[in-house]
Amino acid sequence: MEMQYKVGVNGGGRLRRTDLAVRVLALVLTLAAAVVLGVNKQTTTVPITIVPSLPPVNMPVTAKWLHMSAFVYFVIANAIACFYTTVSLIITLATKGGIKKVSIMVTILDVVVVAILFSAIGASGAVGLIGYQGNSHVQWQKVCNVFDKFCHQVTAAMVLSFFASMAYLLLVVLVVFHVYKKL
Amino acid sequence: MEMQYKVGVNGGGRLRRTDLAVRVLALVLTLAAAVVLGVNKQTTTVPITIVPSLPPVNMPVTAKWLHMSAFVYFVIANAIACFYTTVSLIITLATKGGIKKVSIMVTILDVVVVAILFSAIGASGAVGLIGYQGNSHVQWQKVCNVFDKFCHQVTAAMVLSFFASMAYLLLVVLVVFHVYKKL
Repeated sequence: MEMQYKVGVNGGGRLRRTDLAVRVLALVLTLAAAVVLGVNKQTTTVPITIVPSLPPVNMPVTAKWLHMSAFVYFVIANAIACFYTTVSLIITLATKGGIKKVSIMVTILDVVVVAILFSAIGASGAVGLIGYQGNSHVQWQKVCNVFDKFCHQVTAAMVLSFFASMAYLLLVVLVVFHVYKKL
Repeated sequence: MEMQYKVGVNGGGRLRRTDLAVRVLALVLTLAAAVVLGVNKQTTTVPITIVPSLPPVNMPVTAKWLHMSAFVYFVIANAIACFYTTVSLIITLATKGGIKKVSIMVTILDVVVVAILFSAIGASGAVGLIGYQGNSHVQWQKVCNVFDKFCHQVTAAMVLSFFASMAYLLLVVLVVFHVYKKL
């Protein structure tokens, strides 16, 4: 019975190897996304008018991920996903996908991670778009013309996180295909 | 064999009834979320200084969901989810959950809808938060002190959409539990 579970739940090796490979990829991608945005910082000088009758003065201004709630959420979400991937990798390796309850829990948490990562990408994307284009209706000026390096790094982190969330989506799809096939 | 599939895939009635009920709930919630934000519009007067030496003039300004890309994405995402729910309801009723390939496709699309809805909630949430609090680092002023009704309606739409995405998450969790149990 135990043997039957092992074959039934983890697909006898091939699915588990694919699962582990995709999980390692997701771990690398979420770690990279969190680090790329977490170390993101750019200081530049912008002309600021202090007294209207005098010419503007060049002042240093700094852009940091901590300055925007959406970016803080993005870094935390990717760090959580990265931590969870490490734990799920250890669990999958330790149980060899042979304990049904653990497999159910891991699959459900995979879907939850998809939700968390996509919400973080949505949040950063929305703020990033305003940063690039500005919004005249609410008088929010674009800032990416000043903080170009910072904005490029935000885009890079978002692309990494998007691939990570697609990896999680793939994990869920693989399991759904596998378990339905076994019915 | 056909009978076995019917019992195996849809759980012989109880899961299918729960699935249908949750799907109807998701349909209502996504439709409500799209409509609540789609009809959202507020016109108010704000004092605007045209000539610095003259007192400010009260000018009418309008807030609309079309003015912000994140809100446009939110309405489209919820409309797509609503349309998909209708189609999946019809398919589930027509096939009675008895065709394995259809059940696999519906489950995978349910996960994709979770991802789409969460990204839309994340995008609207990030923009909404700046609307409420502003962001001094990039000089984006808060606007919800002026457009209070508009902002409340955005929050209501987000809550509705959040419950809809939780309904989809529940659909996936139910299927995962059910199919693993059958292994």
